[in-house]
Amino acid sequence: MFKARVKMEVLRELVDVVSTLVTETKLQVSVDGIEVKAVDPSHVAMLVLNLKKTGFEEFTGDSTEIGIDVEKIKDVLRLSKPGDLLNLAYDGGKGKLEVSVGKIVRHMGVVDPAGITDPKVPNVNPPGKVVLKTDELRQGIRGSESISDHVTLTLDPEFFSMHSEGENDRLDLKIPKSELTLLEAKETVKSMYPLDFFSSMVKSISSAEEVTIFVGNEYPLKLEFSFAGGRGDARFLLAPRVEED
Amino acid sequence: MFKARVKMEVLRELVDVVSTLVTETKLQVSVDGIEVKAVDPSHVAMLVLNLKKTGFEEFTGDSTEIGIDVEKIKDVLRLSKPGDLLNLAYDGGKGKLEVSVGKIVRHMGVVDPAGITDPKVPNVNPPGKVVLKTDELRQGIRGSESISDHVTLTLDPEFFSMHSEGENDRLDLKIPKSELTLLEAKETVKSMYPLDFFSSMVKSISSAEEVTIFVGNEYPLKLEFSFAGGRGDARFLLAPRVEED
Amino acid sequence: MFKARVKMEVLRELVDVVSTLVTETKLQVSVDGIEVKAVDPSHVAMLVLNLKKTGFEEFTGDSTEIGIDVEKIKDVLRLSKPGDLLNLAYDGGKGKLEVSVGKIVRHMGVVDPAGITDPKVPNVNPPGKVVLKTDELRQGIRGSESISDHVTLTLDPEFFSMHSEGENDRLDLKIPKSELTLLEAKETVKSMYPLDFFSSMVKSISSAEEVTIFVGNEYPLKLEFSFAGGRGDARFLLAPRVEED
Repeated sequence: MFKARVKMEVLRELVDVVSTLVTETKLQVSVDGIEVKAVDPSHVAMLVLNLKKTGFEEFTGDSTEIGIDVEKIKDVLRLSKPGDLLNLAYDGGKGKLEVSVGKIVRHMGVVDPAGITDPKVPNVNPPGKVVLKTDELRQGIRGSESISDHVTLTLDPEFFSMHSEGENDRLDLKIPKSELTLLEAKETVKSMYPLDFFSSMVKSISSAEEVTIFVGNEYPLKLEFSFAGGRGDARFLLAPRVEED
Repeated sequence: MFKARVKMEVLRELVDVVSTLVTETKLQVSVDGIEVKAVDPSHVAMLVLNLKKTGFEEFTGDSTEIGIDVEKIKDVLRLSKPGDLLNLAYDGGKGKLEVSVGKIVRHMGVVDPAGITDPKVPNVNPPGKVVLKTDELRQGIRGSESISDHVTLTLDPEFFSMHSEGENDRLDLKIPKSELTLLEAKETVKSMYPLDFFSSMVKSISSAEEVTIFVGNEYPLKLEFSFAGGRGDARFLLAPRVEED
Repeated sequence: MFKARVKMEVLRELVDVVSTLVTETKLQVSVDGIEVKAVDPSHVAMLVLNLKKTGFEEFTGDSTEIGIDVEKIKDVLRLSKPGDLLNLAYDGGKGKLEVSVGKIVRHMGVVDPAGITDPKVPNVNPPGKVVLKTDELRQGIRGSESISDHVTLTLDPEFFSMHSEGENDRLDLKIPKSELTLLEAKETVKSMYPLDFFSSMVKSISSAEEVTIFVGNEYPLKLEFSFAGGRGDARFLLAPRVEED
């Protein structure tokens, strides 16, 4: 059983984040809130997202799995405006998921959770860590998109940098330690990542002013951020692209 | 003869409403104002629209028919900005229709009115009547568009509802009598209508905060609204889609 | 050598103006500022543009030619927001042109200037001259685009007019001498010009509230305007389209 009331901004960010990787997903409902785990079809990127009970305006749930079609939630979100509240209700089994906003109710067919991949999320602990402004990262990503389809992230004891390189052009975003909220790197570490995934991930973040990035040498990226005023958090993992020498 | 001066917002709404059904139409000019009657090529929907002399800033007209290409009026409207006044002038016969805004004058070739269908608009009086907020109706329509290509309108003594149904999903907009400006239904009546027409009609309305809808059982819809600050009014008729059992 | 700091609005207008004619161009750098000359591939239109040293926030340059890909500068401009400053630096030879905004640096491959046409700009002095509001001209151009692919400009001792004519429609923008900032025409002169070029030129102007147009009889058009608060100026020439009688 699941019954909740949530701000459109919170549900929209949740859905935007999830839809960078998948079109269908399982909501794992518990008494404490909801969790989503997802892996993209090519197994390059993963997501673990939690939204606590307190991130909702109202919340009642017990242990339930709901298979949802992300696009259908987006359909209803498009009917709402900033500040609106959406109601969600699910009785379990093959029942419909009920999503309402204002005087409108949509009853959605659910997806059989058995058909949705349940990723085992590995414990990834890259040695370098940086906390930086989402806007600066976003700007660097937009600049890289006209240069290449991958970017190299470097964490150095003195700076963070993102680098992309094309045939005749290159682009660098470089932020010295003094302008970063946090930088932990004992030595220089760097990895190259596919830009399409990295870009979608970062662009799906709407409320977090800062993100935390963990980088190692030719190692998966870990990208963490919070949402719903700190009552939700999400963690992306992204496989590195190994440079050919 | 016809010579008039009109606010761009008034002419734009008139043209938006007319162009939901036709690309060419006849303006019936009289000493009292203008009238447009239109039927879409598939004869599913009809329109009767009147704009009184007082809905213009200036108006001089005698009995004249002007065949116009709606898209050309839109071209000139695109040159105007909110608050602008447009001037219209027509001397009759094969002369041009002159439409001007600011220092720009467009002379438009007119269409032979003989080639434009002149619909006989039937007298349709469905038994149920509801007055509701245009915004709420518009929101329900937008929600229905991802579900189905038709909607069912129901007028009950206690509520108004709009319902659409897809293979696995359904959407309902339901408004209780207490939240409607007016509801007159002695018994439950309902009909199904094609969503494309109904959606275009409602979306073409820009100034009316409320619309009046008349519904019967498997009966044509009548949709009425006013524009130009009450000095214009329009009435759409829309054939029902008969449910197959 | 070239090193400069410039407001994004100034660089953006420069780039928009240049890209109406070419995708690659030579920046002629001198101690006094920069100059761009360009001719479109069909040799119908030409441009001479100057931006003085004082139009930059900082400027150091000696005589250098830099072959640039205009689209790449636009890429970097898209990373900036109004009020931002961009830095440009070039050391000469086959080195990269460095363009930076905020914490982002792009190193761009330059184009061999030897491969870029260096137009000889003729001395064109049409007898009629008019100074008019850019907005009014722009509105007339937008109106003409739905009528024809060319426009006729007329300078008369009493008025300026722009006229376009289609099969059944015509459009006129006519401004009497009293509403023009300046009108110098001893007799009526007029020429027809291709609308695509004329439209792109005028639409590329973003800061000048007025433009100066010189017209003769079946003679090239000269269109002058300033930018960068008067510290930059540009001159377009456009070949007439000769009317067939």
